[in-house]
Amino acid sequence: MSAKIILFDAYGTLFDVYTVKEKCEEFYEGKGESISRLWREKQLEYCFLSQLTQKYEPFDQLTRKGLQAALDQMGENYDTERIDTLFKAYEQLQPFEETETVLKQLSGRKTAIFSNGTKGMLDPLIRHNGFEELIGSISADGIRQYKPAPAAYSYAMEKLGAAKEDILFVSCNQWDIAGAASFGFKTVWINRKEEPLSRLGFKPHKQLNSLEGLAEIG
Amino acid sequence: MSAKIILFDAYGTLFDVYTVKEKCEEFYEGKGESISRLWREKQLEYCFLSQLTQKYEPFDQLTRKGLQAALDQMGENYDTERIDTLFKAYEQLQPFEETETVLKQLSGRKTAIFSNGTKGMLDPLIRHNGFEELIGSISADGIRQYKPAPAAYSYAMEKLGAAKEDILFVSCNQWDIAGAASFGFKTVWINRKEEPLSRLGFKPHKQLNSLEGLAEIG
Repeated sequence: MSAKIILFDAYGTLFDVYTVKEKCEEFYEGKGESISRLWREKQLEYCFLSQLTQKYEPFDQLTRKGLQAALDQMGENYDTERIDTLFKAYEQLQPFEETETVLKQLSGRKTAIFSNGTKGMLDPLIRHNGFEELIGSISADGIRQYKPAPAAYSYAMEKLGAAKEDILFVSCNQWDIAGAASFGFKTVWINRKEEPLSRLGFKPHKQLNSLEGLAEIG
Repeated sequence: MSAKIILFDAYGTLFDVYTVKEKCEEFYEGKGESISRLWREKQLEYCFLSQLTQKYEPFDQLTRKGLQAALDQMGENYDTERIDTLFKAYEQLQPFEETETVLKQLSGRKTAIFSNGTKGMLDPLIRHNGFEELIGSISADGIRQYKPAPAAYSYAMEKLGAAKEDILFVSCNQWDIAGAASFGFKTVWINRKEEPLSRLGFKPHKQLNSLEGLAEIG
């Protein structure tokens, strides 16, 4: 495909959001896994609802509120300090097994992260993982419009000073592929769990089951 | 509150979407319940994604695609005829136990349904249940913008020739309450399953656990 720029989603694509479960487990024994799942679900629900109702709130706030909602739903107790501590785990997410190798394979290419997370969430995460020489970040917070809204992808394109057809967008999230593909980016769907393709009609240019093999495509 | 107009969501609020499970059960024994749940989930997912990406598709099409996606995910077989037959069940949903009584209690008041469903879905459903003397329908399809987008509620308001403060909006769906409340309608959340209130910050004016008691509020 020979795209000029390879643009990556962050959460679930380069970094595993469910690695917060270890921190959750410290406070809620035996429930780390389920809290981490519900937390992600609520975070996305709030992000989409915020975009749909056109009442923007930054992703760090929605991530905190999503955690509170998950704990509410599970009937667990918490206070502000606990929420702060667990939120910190989002800045210390672990990458997937192959993330670093693949980013290194692509080190001669132009790459960037484009995420709904704020710069204040993304940059500490990149530093925590020692990736600051490998990749930089663009946040949808810059335009206060969340992916998968077209305005968000358009903003990333402007920040990169690139044309639509120059960008190869990589995400594990089907909703993100839907948005990017319908906006006009070339896309690679990292389908880690072998989910069926959406019936909505958009198609990724390519599917992979991990980031491996991206260097040959991009 | 003495609103001039009581505006109802349809699916899940006046009519029970999970009553399609009986028809699903005829074709997929023992799986009617889970298909009906996943179908609703996928229908909403597609509706929101369609709105988020600004690629409008009418709700009847999204309802069909949502059913296909549910069956895909469950590894079940189907053909076009099967999808047509099951989709028909959406025009024959059963109302909740109290729906008819409450609509009759409100018969001296101005009421309407405002739904993401198309007129072609809503009007047969109203007729099927013999409610045509009790309530009429407005569809977000008229403006090709789905609830909970502000443009959708604005359209309903214009169709009713009413001011924001004249409208009391009733829904079982918290995302719908979020949209209506942030747009500026007075709202009643029919919280049938005693869900916790969202952390997003909007507040319904009133919560009820069924439609009963609405006549006293509205």
